Amino acid sequence: MDPSKSDKRSGSTPASVTTPTATVDLDRRRRCGFPEVVFGQGKTVEQLREILAALVSDGGDALATRIDAEQAAGLVAAFPQGRYNRVARTFRVPARPPRPSGEGGVEGASAGWVAVISAGTSDLAVAEEARETLDWMGVRVTMIHDVGVAGPHRLPERLAEFEAADAVVVVAGMEGALPSVVGGYVACPVIGVPTSVGYGANFGGISALLSMLNSCAANVAVVNIDAGFKAAYLAGLIATRCHLPPDS
Amino acid sequence: MDPSKSDKRSGSTPASVTTPTATVDLDRRRRCGFPEVVFGQGKTVEQLREILAALVSDGGDALATRIDAEQAAGLVAAFPQGRYNRVARTFRVPARPPRPSGEGGVEGASAGWVAVISAGTSDLAVAEEARETLDWMGVRVTMIHDVGVAGPHRLPERLAEFEAADAVVVVAGMEGALPSVVGGYVACPVIGVPTSVGYGANFGGISALLSMLNSCAANVAVVNIDAGFKAAYLAGLIATRCHLPPDS
Amino acid sequence: MDPSKSDKRSGSTPASVTTPTATVDLDRRRRCGFPEVVFGQGKTVEQLREILAALVSDGGDALATRIDAEQAAGLVAAFPQGRYNRVARTFRVPARPPRPSGEGGVEGASAGWVAVISAGTSDLAVAEEARETLDWMGVRVTMIHDVGVAGPHRLPERLAEFEAADAVVVVAGMEGALPSVVGGYVACPVIGVPTSVGYGANFGGISALLSMLNSCAANVAVVNIDAGFKAAYLAGLIATRCHLPPDS
Amino acid sequence: MDPSKSDKRSGSTPASVTTPTATVDLDRRRRCGFPEVVFGQGKTVEQLREILAALVSDGGDALATRIDAEQAAGLVAAFPQGRYNRVARTFRVPARPPRPSGEGGVEGASAGWVAVISAGTSDLAVAEEARETLDWMGVRVTMIHDVGVAGPHRLPERLAEFEAADAVVVVAGMEGALPSVVGGYVACPVIGVPTSVGYGANFGGISALLSMLNSCAANVAVVNIDAGFKAAYLAGLIATRCHLPPDS
Amino acid sequence: MDPSKSDKRSGSTPASVTTPTATVDLDRRRRCGFPEVVFGQGKTVEQLREILAALVSDGGDALATRIDAEQAAGLVAAFPQGRYNRVARTFRVPARPPRPSGEGGVEGASAGWVAVISAGTSDLAVAEEARETLDWMGVRVTMIHDVGVAGPHRLPERLAEFEAADAVVVVAGMEGALPSVVGGYVACPVIGVPTSVGYGANFGGISALLSMLNSCAANVAVVNIDAGFKAAYLAGLIATRCHLPPDS
Amino acid sequence: MDPSKSDKRSGSTPASVTTPTATVDLDRRRRCGFPEVVFGQGKTVEQLREILAALVSDGGDALATRIDAEQAAGLVAAFPQGRYNRVARTFRVPARPPRPSGEGGVEGASAGWVAVISAGTSDLAVAEEARETLDWMGVRVTMIHDVGVAGPHRLPERLAEFEAADAVVVVAGMEGALPSVVGGYVACPVIGVPTSVGYGANFGGISALLSMLNSCAANVAVVNIDAGFKAAYLAGLIATRCHLPPDS
Amino acid sequence: MDPSKSDKRSGSTPASVTTPTATVDLDRRRRCGFPEVVFGQGKTVEQLREILAALVSDGGDALATRIDAEQAAGLVAAFPQGRYNRVARTFRVPARPPRPSGEGGVEGASAGWVAVISAGTSDLAVAEEARETLDWMGVRVTMIHDVGVAGPHRLPERLAEFEAADAVVVVAGMEGALPSVVGGYVACPVIGVPTSVGYGANFGGISALLSMLNSCAANVAVVNIDAGFKAAYLAGLIATRCHLPPDS
Amino acid sequence: MDPSKSDKRSGSTPASVTTPTATVDLDRRRRCGFPEVVFGQGKTVEQLREILAALVSDGGDALATRIDAEQAAGLVAAFPQGRYNRVARTFRVPARPPRPSGEGGVEGASAGWVAVISAGTSDLAVAEEARETLDWMGVRVTMIHDVGVAGPHRLPERLAEFEAADAVVVVAGMEGALPSVVGGYVACPVIGVPTSVGYGANFGGISALLSMLNSCAANVAVVNIDAGFKAAYLAGLIATRCHLPPDS
Repeated sequence: MDPSKSDKRSGSTPASVTTPTATVDLDRRRRCGFPEVVFGQGKTVEQLREILAALVSDGGDALATRIDAEQAAGLVAAFPQGRYNRVARTFRVPARPPRPSGEGGVEGASAGWVAVISAGTSDLAVAEEARETLDWMGVRVTMIHDVGVAGPHRLPERLAEFEAADAVVVVAGMEGALPSVVGGYVACPVIGVPTSVGYGANFGGISALLSMLNSCAANVAVVNIDAGFKAAYLAGLIATRCHLPPDS
Repeated sequence: MDPSKSDKRSGSTPASVTTPTATVDLDRRRRCGFPEVVFGQGKTVEQLREILAALVSDGGDALATRIDAEQAAGLVAAFPQGRYNRVARTFRVPARPPRPSGEGGVEGASAGWVAVISAGTSDLAVAEEARETLDWMGVRVTMIHDVGVAGPHRLPERLAEFEAADAVVVVAGMEGALPSVVGGYVACPVIGVPTSVGYGANFGGISALLSMLNSCAANVAVVNIDAGFKAAYLAGLIATRCHLPPDS
Repeated sequence: MDPSKSDKRSGSTPASVTTPTATVDLDRRRRCGFPEVVFGQGKTVEQLREILAALVSDGGDALATRIDAEQAAGLVAAFPQGRYNRVARTFRVPARPPRPSGEGGVEGASAGWVAVISAGTSDLAVAEEARETLDWMGVRVTMIHDVGVAGPHRLPERLAEFEAADAVVVVAGMEGALPSVVGGYVACPVIGVPTSVGYGANFGGISALLSMLNSCAANVAVVNIDAGFKAAYLAGLIATRCHLPPDS
Repeated sequence: MDPSKSDKRSGSTPASVTTPTATVDLDRRRRCGFPEVVFGQGKTVEQLREILAALVSDGGDALATRIDAEQAAGLVAAFPQGRYNRVARTFRVPARPPRPSGEGGVEGASAGWVAVISAGTSDLAVAEEARETLDWMGVRVTMIHDVGVAGPHRLPERLAEFEAADAVVVVAGMEGALPSVVGGYVACPVIGVPTSVGYGANFGGISALLSMLNSCAANVAVVNIDAGFKAAYLAGLIATRCHLPPDS
Repeated sequence: MDPSKSDKRSGSTPASVTTPTATVDLDRRRRCGFPEVVFGQGKTVEQLREILAALVSDGGDALATRIDAEQAAGLVAAFPQGRYNRVARTFRVPARPPRPSGEGGVEGASAGWVAVISAGTSDLAVAEEARETLDWMGVRVTMIHDVGVAGPHRLPERLAEFEAADAVVVVAGMEGALPSVVGGYVACPVIGVPTSVGYGANFGGISALLSMLNSCAANVAVVNIDAGFKAAYLAGLIATRCHLPPDS
Repeated sequence: MDPSKSDKRSGSTPASVTTPTATVDLDRRRRCGFPEVVFGQGKTVEQLREILAALVSDGGDALATRIDAEQAAGLVAAFPQGRYNRVARTFRVPARPPRPSGEGGVEGASAGWVAVISAGTSDLAVAEEARETLDWMGVRVTMIHDVGVAGPHRLPERLAEFEAADAVVVVAGMEGALPSVVGGYVACPVIGVPTSVGYGANFGGISALLSMLNSCAANVAVVNIDAGFKAAYLAGLIATRCHLPPDS
Repeated sequence: MDPSKSDKRSGSTPASVTTPTATVDLDRRRRCGFPEVVFGQGKTVEQLREILAALVSDGGDALATRIDAEQAAGLVAAFPQGRYNRVARTFRVPARPPRPSGEGGVEGASAGWVAVISAGTSDLAVAEEARETLDWMGVRVTMIHDVGVAGPHRLPERLAEFEAADAVVVVAGMEGALPSVVGGYVACPVIGVPTSVGYGANFGGISALLSMLNSCAANVAVVNIDAGFKAAYLAGLIATRCHLPPDS
Repeated sequence: MDPSKSDKRSGSTPASVTTPTATVDLDRRRRCGFPEVVFGQGKTVEQLREILAALVSDGGDALATRIDAEQAAGLVAAFPQGRYNRVARTFRVPARPPRPSGEGGVEGASAGWVAVISAGTSDLAVAEEARETLDWMGVRVTMIHDVGVAGPHRLPERLAEFEAADAVVVVAGMEGALPSVVGGYVACPVIGVPTSVGYGANFGGISALLSMLNSCAANVAVVNIDAGFKAAYLAGLIATRCHLPPDS
């Protein structure tokens, strides 16, 4: 049975809660397997608080991304049980009682495995956002840092650490060549995340984005610039579905 | 056992064959689960013939994409057992003996299921390239045509046909909004393919590409403009891996 | 009689007033049915004060847009009867005696009806600028928030609230797909406003702008990025003209 | 009664007809007041024939745009009662019995009035597509040609011909300045259509498109480059709605 | 005699002075008719002081552009006889003894006449930089503000003030249409200056720049965005040369 | 007396002639000193013939630009006295009786002098269009070919040929650096024409256009890509005005 | 002694020859070590013939690039001793008596060594242009084809063939990642040539160009898209200079 | 013997050191002739300190670029023997015992010679970064400032100072024309560095970048915008290799 599709819109739980400025889709966990994740950029602390409160009331393990330090201060005050990751810029309010790390949103699923590979030190924030997302999904993560293509010996030396993963997230700025190289080493899907790291004719990540879109490796898909959450969510979906019981 | 990773580089088969202008990676089927697919655009008939002959000799089910009518004429003469799909612009030389349709490249795998959804009549060529690719991979395909967002009643009416697929490929030009809408209806990964269909400020598909990259649906990844093959290959990988025997 | 065209340039009122840095077009109300609206961005408080004073002296209900907090402080001091909307960034000095809300600039016109629909929480500022503009024009407004396409069930659930409006303003950032979907549900003109909300390959709203320009819905026109005022003005014009007495 | 909204999806007529490659939305006339218009670019003669036949069977007055000479030859053979406009690149199959010119799709509506103004000789094709569309909608059209802004005396000399229209379509390439100037003369909505006419840093119409988006006239909305049909459709919607009986 | 070309590189004056970081071209006044103008942006106060001191020592009337408030403070301290124009962001150190205003750099030339026309209040800074430059060149200036094309009556009402000028500088942001319209009214060269004023799809002035480049008026040339100095310098050159004695 | 401004709109001559698709501005010669020039691109032979006939009837010396070989064939048949310049792609119908070469449109004016400098062999077509335009204006032309900046000795060797001209037109593709260098050698206005010559990251002339807009030489203005006519017209205006009798 | 700088402009040979449309820089061989190379694109056969004849008369080994089949036919007729390379699109007229292959333009220099590495079959034309150029310069060339990054095992397997070269030219389209990887393996300068091979968001080579500009390898410089000649010329200069006698 | 390639990966020194967030490639000095240079932008002081400490421990002469004032303060505290160049934004920790200036990284090599030429005062920071890099490499540097093309007499006057260099780095913003002109004067390779200096249609250096890519001089290669380090590194590699002992 596929837990991500069962029980859609059934039961007595309300499907959504409307705050003064937002409509929180509580049905999403039943419909898509994971609750809604809150995109923090551009929202006030007040708006964030309302939305997170609705998700927490629904019993969920709530995750918010793109939370800056100022927003975080307000959220920590409101949700003392929450945890702010300053590098990833994520804020997470665990379910009560919290599941142990590595046991995420989909009950009964044997957790999958995703590798997150980054090209340089400056890609850490995006990689960390991916790690937090996968942890929240209950997916096992392997982090591999600083293996950019201009040091071509580094990646193959670490091949054993990631070649059997269910999916790989590759985070790279500048010329964005790493996903193509990783895609040549592994058989599984690779999700490339271009980052806005760089200068000059980098155009805030366009250079890396175009590289990844034009990758000659057939197993490379792309998400938006700096979209660590989305890449991880996709990789996590793939990994989770690879390990569903056969009858699902 | 994961067939896509077993038996890597073992045995007596040569890992590659070098033609006068290309190096054909015969090891790829063993390394990645599927043999190399030939990108036809810009290659001469002579080059294509050499590469396909090498793949056929290796016992594979050979697929070439972006084959125009003139190239096809030359290939049909050289490979009478091959089949040219004029709409998809693909040329496929089946293995001998050919497997029945729907039994693709990975032996022993219970085939997965992918839906290919297109927005308008003009997106057919790209959708058809995706269909040919998935058929070659041995993955079951459901085709849903002409369900663009400006007729918003059409897609939900057909939800039952695709909501349980392992992955969905969505092909759309113009404003490229369809992947976001599909992404809201399904729990599985969605691979968006922007097409170059349109006019004016469409810029050969950039408009649709940007829409898909900026999709507010968390389960949407993107491939290059008109890249029907790549989207299908990724969706096929996901579907195949979802149905591997549990011990693999 | 069409009030928006009567009495052009007649009477003894001066057609314009020249301040040290600007020429205020007082004739505009007679020529176009509504007085000039002041675009505040880049103007000093001194310039704004002079222009608004000229409009107020002319008896009008004066509206200024793109007024930041600092400009607002100066204007509130100068026009105690004025009202600053911090979210919309508008400043409005009502006519004396003020008309009740909902009775706007065109005397004798039976007011029309416009719906303002926004995709996400972050589009609120632009939607609110549209609401203020329509209120100033004396047009009835229905606000519908947070119905982005990735939650495809939300919009049709609220169809009854807007399908009979005279015109619809749709405010959306990111992939900008909402106007196409709304355009498929309603028969009236839809004015799309791309917003600069988003990140990565969003390019300050270009992604949403291109989507809307390429909309496959025939009833969607577009205005500039974040141009809530202009979209509302156009929708308000349409709504007002739909309800003019038949002999006008 | 608003004819554009009455009788939605009622009666025994089928809501759509599915041809091998397309789904024709026959319900659209009842839902939106006008039947679907066929975008010809990229479609085969066979596809066009199937779609037009479905619309004609439904009793409609069928219009196809972007029909090149080769497509037209095939359509004229199939629909001898049809008419091809070589300049506008439109093909129209009138209803049987045909309504007299000027009595378009919405029964019982007193037709509105739209002016179509073009800047130069080279904008004629787009202006003519707009004229055909408005004629098909049953809206009265005034055509004003070759009044570009570099001959600033020309437009005001002809003001009397268009200033009382219900809406104005302005077609302009190169610097695209004409909509702003027209917008300063009229009180009604102006729909700007940038054209791809020009050379050098014109970028296939981008220059004119940006001008119109940045227009300082508040009553100017924009459609895609060369989108004569869409501009006319919007202007026709506005004009039609301005002349609906008061109780509608 | 053409004073702008006489006496080239003759005499005992040194042709250049080298400061620690710059080489000041003192020969330029003799070679081109006017001394070098200092572009202040990105230079330190120290660098500016050295360069201006060299020009002043040479006896010239020194002009610096793009001087922000902080730079200005340092320069006023160093050159008490200098004058800072806060709006134009120019700093000028007059020659000793100063020539009366309107008697500029070229001795013996009967001064020409240039009109500077701006579209909106926000274009004032660039227009003022042009005015300062022309004054420094000894050219008579007429300033005409706030005559944007969306108020199409304004410009022709003021035609008498500028139609006999030797050259016209037109400063406009947003859609940048004003130079085309002015170009239709006057027979002399028009220099268009796009400004970075605007928002949304304005791209920091690109919209106006493209409009001006694509102007259908044959007598419109263009300079860089916000380049008030360069436009004025060119217009001033033209005006000066129109009034040289016939034997020059 | 300034012939370019005298006798405006006076006399019994009609101000314009309307052909079926165009309005020919006959008043332009009186208003601007030179008759209208016909932009041929995108016009049919029939349209061109009507417009030229109207100009010839008015007694003018008619010039058409962007005339391809096919259009030229039709025009030569209609105007046997006309002359087609295949390189410049211009067609000119001289006045009857023709003025001798070098005595152009402005009677009584002592002709000015313009140099046309081109960077490479491939810029010849644009330079030739400029030459034809200047000849038609009655302005003396000096042509200097193939003096690109990568052969830096070439230009200064020929300085004597152009340094005393009234204005210089500089035609350059690729990096577009030549106007800056020329601008450093001459005191007069320089009009840069970027050409679409080049390949790779040239973008059809954008590279050269940006170079010229960013020129560090203060006396360089720019026209559109390949706009040889416009550059020549501006330079011709400047040259003509420099040689008007002092009392004009 | 550095042969590339000796004997500048000395002797009785003329420094240049002027044909009707071009100025051939005969002094270049003495000044820069190699004669001028003719860029064929956009030149007529007549122009090419004149320029090549001038170079041949000067005794040089003449090379022309970007020669299409039609131009080649004309040149082969005029220079029977010349050789056309259809893939490279080069035409070369050897000096008389011809030097044996591998003994190029610089007498007395011990030839250097350059490797030309290409990513895919479609990059062959550019790689071949580079090979022809290096051969003409008298530099030894090693060609390595089809080692794209998505087959990451290929390049290191061939490292021994190129790691000791004096310079490496890397030709790659699509994501343009190969120069970065090569740059990580070698200590010498790497010249990257982006090619226009690809589709979709490749933009005629921009994607690869941006990748190479943003390369994280410090030893990678870039030339224009498809500029095989320029890359080879630079690499050849470096290689030649590395092997000059120590006293030069 | 080529010191840059000898002794690869031999000996007992570890090839890399892993800090918490980075992997420092200590093998690089042996592999490429020079140790890794640290790109400071976006790194924390803590990260920089760890990486520099690893390089210093390895005995190297460590260089970091893009170090802002705040980072510098932290580094000066940690490495008292280091030197911060505020203009170049570089931080260098010399080896112990320090080699005298001009004796850089490659032992036994007779140092080469590079000229660094800049166009304007504002290009100083990038030129200075180049100078620091070359000094660190042990290459002799000649600095030539402020010789922009609009003062065309300046560069040839200083030709003797740079024409015999082994390579030239040319730093220029705005129109980026200087590398083409320099390339015409010298026979050696020229590395162009576009800078982000300028305004308006400069686009942060794109204008200069495109100019340099399109340079008609065959000996000009390009690096990224503001990439003073990379240009110097390439020029330094070339210069170093030109002076290796003949048997290397």
